[in-house]
Amino acid sequence: MVAEYLKYIKVNPKDNTAIIVTKGGAKKGTAFPCGLTSVEDIPQAHKIALKHIPKDEKIIRYGETIGFARKDILAGSWINDAVMDLPVPPELDSLTEYNQVGNSKINDAKEYTFRGYRNSNGTVGVKNILGITTSVQCVTGIVEFAVKKIKEEILPLYENVDDVVALNHNYGCGVAINAEDAKIPIRTIQNLSDHPSFGGEVMVVGLGCEKLLPQRVNNGKPNDNILILQEQEGFENIMDEMLKKAKQRLGKLNNRKRETFPISKLVVGVQCGGSDAFSGVTANPAVGYATDLLVARGATVMFSEVTEVRDAVHLLTPRTVNKEVKDKLINEMKWYDNYLSKDNVDRSENPSPGNKRGGLTNVVEKSLGSVVKSGESPIVDVLSPGEKVKKTGLHFAATPASDFVCGTLQLASGMHMQVFTTGRGTPYNLSMAPVLKVSTRSELKKEWHDLIDIDAGKIATDESTIEEVGWEIFNKIIAVASGEEKTWADKWGVYNDLALFNPSPVT
Amino acid sequence: MVAEYLKYIKVNPKDNTAIIVTKGGAKKGTAFPCGLTSVEDIPQAHKIALKHIPKDEKIIRYGETIGFARKDILAGSWINDAVMDLPVPPELDSLTEYNQVGNSKINDAKEYTFRGYRNSNGTVGVKNILGITTSVQCVTGIVEFAVKKIKEEILPLYENVDDVVALNHNYGCGVAINAEDAKIPIRTIQNLSDHPSFGGEVMVVGLGCEKLLPQRVNNGKPNDNILILQEQEGFENIMDEMLKKAKQRLGKLNNRKRETFPISKLVVGVQCGGSDAFSGVTANPAVGYATDLLVARGATVMFSEVTEVRDAVHLLTPRTVNKEVKDKLINEMKWYDNYLSKDNVDRSENPSPGNKRGGLTNVVEKSLGSVVKSGESPIVDVLSPGEKVKKTGLHFAATPASDFVCGTLQLASGMHMQVFTTGRGTPYNLSMAPVLKVSTRSELKKEWHDLIDIDAGKIATDESTIEEVGWEIFNKIIAVASGEEKTWADKWGVYNDLALFNPSPVT
Repeated sequence: MVAEYLKYIKVNPKDNTAIIVTKGGAKKGTAFPCGLTSVEDIPQAHKIALKHIPKDEKIIRYGETIGFARKDILAGSWINDAVMDLPVPPELDSLTEYNQVGNSKINDAKEYTFRGYRNSNGTVGVKNILGITTSVQCVTGIVEFAVKKIKEEILPLYENVDDVVALNHNYGCGVAINAEDAKIPIRTIQNLSDHPSFGGEVMVVGLGCEKLLPQRVNNGKPNDNILILQEQEGFENIMDEMLKKAKQRLGKLNNRKRETFPISKLVVGVQCGGSDAFSGVTANPAVGYATDLLVARGATVMFSEVTEVRDAVHLLTPRTVNKEVKDKLINEMKWYDNYLSKDNVDRSENPSPGNKRGGLTNVVEKSLGSVVKSGESPIVDVLSPGEKVKKTGLHFAATPASDFVCGTLQLASGMHMQVFTTGRGTPYNLSMAPVLKVSTRSELKKEWHDLIDIDAGKIATDESTIEEVGWEIFNKIIAVASGEEKTWADKWGVYNDLALFNPSPVT
Repeated sequence: MVAEYLKYIKVNPKDNTAIIVTKGGAKKGTAFPCGLTSVEDIPQAHKIALKHIPKDEKIIRYGETIGFARKDILAGSWINDAVMDLPVPPELDSLTEYNQVGNSKINDAKEYTFRGYRNSNGTVGVKNILGITTSVQCVTGIVEFAVKKIKEEILPLYENVDDVVALNHNYGCGVAINAEDAKIPIRTIQNLSDHPSFGGEVMVVGLGCEKLLPQRVNNGKPNDNILILQEQEGFENIMDEMLKKAKQRLGKLNNRKRETFPISKLVVGVQCGGSDAFSGVTANPAVGYATDLLVARGATVMFSEVTEVRDAVHLLTPRTVNKEVKDKLINEMKWYDNYLSKDNVDRSENPSPGNKRGGLTNVVEKSLGSVVKSGESPIVDVLSPGEKVKKTGLHFAATPASDFVCGTLQLASGMHMQVFTTGRGTPYNLSMAPVLKVSTRSELKKEWHDLIDIDAGKIATDESTIEEVGWEIFNKIIAVASGEEKTWADKWGVYNDLALFNPSPVT
């Protein structure tokens, strides 16, 4: 990063644009030490033209083309939506490079461990949760009622159990279960039920006439896990049965104690939401550094969000470890291109109004800043939406960019914890896995002091470096995974609902 | 209905099939008084062939073709999926009839009223609820936290207020908001916020950077309704602000008292879920009778579920009041045909395994039994998904058949109450409107004595008539709408989540 002066940040020497750091932005006539003068008011985190950019010329950030000048842009101008055209996305079939990156070098040979719960299938949990999963949305009201009752009446008796979580979703019936893409929500529900923080003691609540059979959600475990409402004699009887089944499982979970494991057992998801133009220069590079630290020490990291990878995919294919992984990456991009085109929309739908107010002009710029979270490690595998992680190392887990849909799919893939960067601020959290929130700007951390866990904004103000914040994130992940520290959102107990990805019609 | 003997029910004189009533079904060799003998075991609610049906001949129920014999079917055989082929659906462009039905005649000239809450816009509420709506899923965790706090700490001080309901949904960002069909989820959220049982005192919680602007959800009401999380200084401050806004609104709502209104102010939705072959001969005809009673007295009734109307649409077009309404009905069918075909699925996805176990062999049979809920009244208007009711009388409100999606869309259309028929049993309920559950079989009412409100199964056993159960439903609707009685599910306080219909991609 070349910070010529605190007032703007230029990321790459090739860039002809930079972002304004100063709170309040750069007023018209602001003179920068390099000799540049702003020719209009430019808000904080928005882009300034570093030199004259003639009409149709490339606008460059991160050393990449983020757009083309719609008209002549004077040096010192505000580069926004009105003066920039979207470039075409990378042509997928021409991306042939792979295996161009060696293993990450950031290794200090120290053995890192965390304290988790041992599962009989070899996985490790970082929370000790009673999971109640469902085969159909019809049972949701009943399950929520039961969970409230269990939490109030029984859970306090089992002090080693952290929580009771209902895996409610809106799938299971009234859906096109034979559609080709029905496999996505189905395996998501199956894999969520198998989440390592449930300790294999999940219970399954079904209705009895639904399309998605409770046995499928139960993943071949004993039928004793399953409670079918239509086989019970009314509401009070249902509650009695649910509490009985809950007690049996809480008893087993309560006997578990944390043990020490190498961090190679840890699966971390990275995501961003409510991004701004600082995301790609502060929080995301710091997360990328933490990703490399984790991966170099044998852990697994997933990055996701297809619409925020699509325009930067040419930077990722060379990092895939072999042709098969490269092809899987390309195929996920193609699947999504097709999914969007069926409804005549495209990736330009991605940036939100908040992203734009935050200085992110289009999806190309957003993508370039987003993929930085993946660090520089080789990509060892690509997961289709909701597939389980089978290897260790850096994965691309294909998901939509919607925070909740991405979070739900990363959980299904086996995520223990998520690192979430935000510029505008979002209170997003998951009940199944702690979400560590990293702000891109120090102002956000100051405003949301009791929601944001780590401030990466201090990178922009030179109070800290990418490496330092990367280590801060890395150490915090281990402390939270070990149950020694809590994220702010977990302290409050604020959780968002899961959101299934169902690309097929409802019926 | 021609009930030759209690052991089977034949609905229409033209039918060559009937359904077995006896619990336990008809064993092979059962001799019926009419001379027919079953040639194999046939489960309860399943179909028996009343005579020999040669290969490729029509199989007729409700006087309509529900399928074609895949092979020669002997008299006394079990007619199921294995021996019946699906007919082609009615050709939409050939349906030209409309305005063939006069006004319903079931009128006793008595004036019927109910006790509800007056709203300033002329609508009436049947509950007195503080509604908290959201412009984006990011705020859900915060809103749920606040609702729990409000219910525990403040609500008991306002004894005239029934409940605090969060309109949480998974829309608002990470979605293709410029897709053509984005108007469906958007107007659904807008119209839900305007629900008559919220008394115009809804508050809107937004994040601040989402695609769906909180102002759009607020429907032009004062900006004071809106709370933007990104403008607040952290979690504790957010909670303070939410509780302050809640108190202001609870104070106003608490001053409301029930007044007497004609039932022409009432908007009732009808729906079925977990259907069986009895649905079309017991519960649905009784609901149809209640529909006619309501409509003849000036009330509004909506029936829905496109995939369960599609194959019976030729029976409905003659009942539309004019060509415009007929064309709107056809267009909703076409929209859905296209929606399903984009993913290479069709209406045959509709019957669930439970429907089939309940004797409903295919979507044609299910549809014929389903549309009976609409009675015989003329159809005065057709609503696209989530559109508000603008007239009184019988409406077709186009929705998917998924219970929750249908319920959510009927609520958006302004539904005060829902009548829900079920054969297999589902505990479905809505927090915004009471759901009156009607069982198709007496066994279900016996098993789920504390979840089912009305037993229509007694029609099959000749203990009651369609007319009697129709009046029972009608009177119960008025009692529940007036707050004099509660449904079982409302007594328990068991509620399902809303489920938005978003036919467009997530991004």
